[in-house]
Amino acid sequence: MALIVQKYGGTSVGSIERIKNVARRIIATKHQGNQVIAVLSAMAGETDRLLKLAEQLEFDPEKINEREMDVLVSTGEQVSIALMSMAIETVGEKACSFLGHQIQILTDDEYTQARIERIDPERIHKALYDGYIVVIAGFQGIDKEGNITTLGRGGSDTSAVAIATTMKADLCEIYTDVDGIYTTDPNICHQARKLAKISYDEMLELASQGAKVLQIRSVEFAKKYGIPLHVRSSFSADEGTIVCQEDKSMEKAVVSGVAANKNEAKITIHGIPDRPGIAATIFSSIADRGIVVDMIIQNISEEGLTDLTFTVPKDNYQYSLSIINDICRQIGGKNVLGDEKIAKVSIVGIGMRTHANVASRMFSALARENINIMMISTSEIKVSCVIAEKYTELAVRVLHDEFQLDKDPDYKE
Amino acid sequence: MALIVQKYGGTSVGSIERIKNVARRIIATKHQGNQVIAVLSAMAGETDRLLKLAEQLEFDPEKINEREMDVLVSTGEQVSIALMSMAIETVGEKACSFLGHQIQILTDDEYTQARIERIDPERIHKALYDGYIVVIAGFQGIDKEGNITTLGRGGSDTSAVAIATTMKADLCEIYTDVDGIYTTDPNICHQARKLAKISYDEMLELASQGAKVLQIRSVEFAKKYGIPLHVRSSFSADEGTIVCQEDKSMEKAVVSGVAANKNEAKITIHGIPDRPGIAATIFSSIADRGIVVDMIIQNISEEGLTDLTFTVPKDNYQYSLSIINDICRQIGGKNVLGDEKIAKVSIVGIGMRTHANVASRMFSALARENINIMMISTSEIKVSCVIAEKYTELAVRVLHDEFQLDKDPDYKE
Repeated sequence: MALIVQKYGGTSVGSIERIKNVARRIIATKHQGNQVIAVLSAMAGETDRLLKLAEQLEFDPEKINEREMDVLVSTGEQVSIALMSMAIETVGEKACSFLGHQIQILTDDEYTQARIERIDPERIHKALYDGYIVVIAGFQGIDKEGNITTLGRGGSDTSAVAIATTMKADLCEIYTDVDGIYTTDPNICHQARKLAKISYDEMLELASQGAKVLQIRSVEFAKKYGIPLHVRSSFSADEGTIVCQEDKSMEKAVVSGVAANKNEAKITIHGIPDRPGIAATIFSSIADRGIVVDMIIQNISEEGLTDLTFTVPKDNYQYSLSIINDICRQIGGKNVLGDEKIAKVSIVGIGMRTHANVASRMFSALARENINIMMISTSEIKVSCVIAEKYTELAVRVLHDEFQLDKDPDYKE
Repeated sequence: MALIVQKYGGTSVGSIERIKNVARRIIATKHQGNQVIAVLSAMAGETDRLLKLAEQLEFDPEKINEREMDVLVSTGEQVSIALMSMAIETVGEKACSFLGHQIQILTDDEYTQARIERIDPERIHKALYDGYIVVIAGFQGIDKEGNITTLGRGGSDTSAVAIATTMKADLCEIYTDVDGIYTTDPNICHQARKLAKISYDEMLELASQGAKVLQIRSVEFAKKYGIPLHVRSSFSADEGTIVCQEDKSMEKAVVSGVAANKNEAKITIHGIPDRPGIAATIFSSIADRGIVVDMIIQNISEEGLTDLTFTVPKDNYQYSLSIINDICRQIGGKNVLGDEKIAKVSIVGIGMRTHANVASRMFSALARENINIMMISTSEIKVSCVIAEKYTELAVRVLHDEFQLDKDPDYKE
């Protein structure tokens, strides 16, 4: 008898009909001789409905009461688990729902962005032992004073992995509205191929470069505790993609996927006096405002002056620009330039570690299409290039083609 | 500095605009130098929306999972308290919401109909001491295993009174969509007059006879602990009605109110052998099915045979009729007759205790209008008559007139 954790996203439980379908799927898994824990998101649209109610209060977004925001939005998952438990019982199996406070999903107290610290397995164990299908609200927990906390958008993935870890589950299935992880976004590139397997590290790079299937933290969690994830569709019986430890079969591919991200903007400060401490002044002033800087490039200094370019989330662009203009004056820089019309395309693959020419192949492929590269950043298993936004889709297709991602690497010459 | 508990019903928090209005009212109460605890219902329509979602699951109503039903419907109040706390903070006061599990509103485990056993005052005390307006979810609690329970429709009234009792509040205000307790339903009788004061016992009789302003259990609770209730409208600044211990001013009125109830049906068994144990057989068979019998009348026995008439809720009428037909055969009764087209009109007043002719005045007034009385039942402070349903409104107006309820008793000759 295996213990299986199944996480169903908002689209999968987006209507009563879909809840019934999921109930049948959960029961089928149980009837195959398994114990099942289902972790649910809010019904699609519900979280937005709740946020819109709050917006009508017209409060100052800077002064938002995040504790109460979490009290509000956590009701979405509560509705889902109650309906799912009833749906399961309608078909004749026993089900029992649990909220964060009932199984002590303990988090830190960072409202709206909390991190799970531990979960009490006892009550879940007892319910499973008594023959219940356990249905748990994703996305939420409590801090040590019993206040409700939430884990950020996509947090149900992390809930599922944390529960799978705590319960020492044999498998954690992530049911979503796509049928797995693709070599790239199929909407951009029709040759995109579903991957049978991908390593945690590749998944982490793809997710942080813009692939939205899994919350990054859930992958980190799964990697840390070695829980294999099966990302698959709740609308079909097809196998999806297994996210797991690296193995030999994966290394055959030089590149596993291509990701694109249009959510960043770049800012350049020209003519900065090249002396110690300047970069620290600039980036601490940005970080202090909670703005996350992604790529940073400093050009070679000429005549004691240097240029610094970095990217920030597009949402924070105007705010960042005004901060940087102030700082430029303070430190005696020449001028500040910004560009919102950029995109970052990335290739990801653990095979890069043993193949020297991957980056140069990427640059050549882009050059052949006259796509200019504005910034480059690399990690052990990733190369990212910032290009003009208008070339995003073209770049993705070119790179997908260059590294033959449409072909299964097992059959590669 | 007084401690005031304010309960706001679903209509009072039925939209964002209304929530803002209530927030201003709460803050005004605080600015008058009071500590304030607000107890909220779900936004009007929200509980029905949730129940409709559940209905779409098409489960067998007999096998409804009441534990999960409570998980579902309790989200309504959670949404209200989060929005209210945010609304209060928008105006600039500090607010903090609490759910059943956070302040240990401990109930028995009768899902959907739970009774409050105790509440932990500590966290509420601390929040008030720290200058917060405390906003508490009505209608819900937890059992001793931490399962969510609800208190039945109108349960937020009871939540408010229980919290007022626990916190030793100076006053418990019940804000609703009517501006107080009336001598009768103003929709039926335009002469209906708002009462300045009414005793707990009269309120209990009026509520159990069909007046719907307060949940009966909340009045019992308030009576037991001597908490005065102020029933008033959230849409005006006018004083409402104080529900409190009897005092001298109340005794001037012979009758305080007239109530009517169309939710019962009557059943008569004719020709029952008049021997000990028969009534017990009949009523235990009904009670075992959870059906609540209200009035019971047994006629004088003739030739060893007797007739028995009683009322049951209209919802249980057909079911009761089939049970009673079976029993009639078993005990050798003659036949069973039923009537759904009935109503019960009641007059209530503590003044009856010292006025002998109240019942006969009631009967005469009805007789003058040719309204036939089918059943009569009395208590120390109440007389109820069952009449044909079509005369309900007429009977209410006649009785209101007979006892001059449109006039303030202080000025009575």
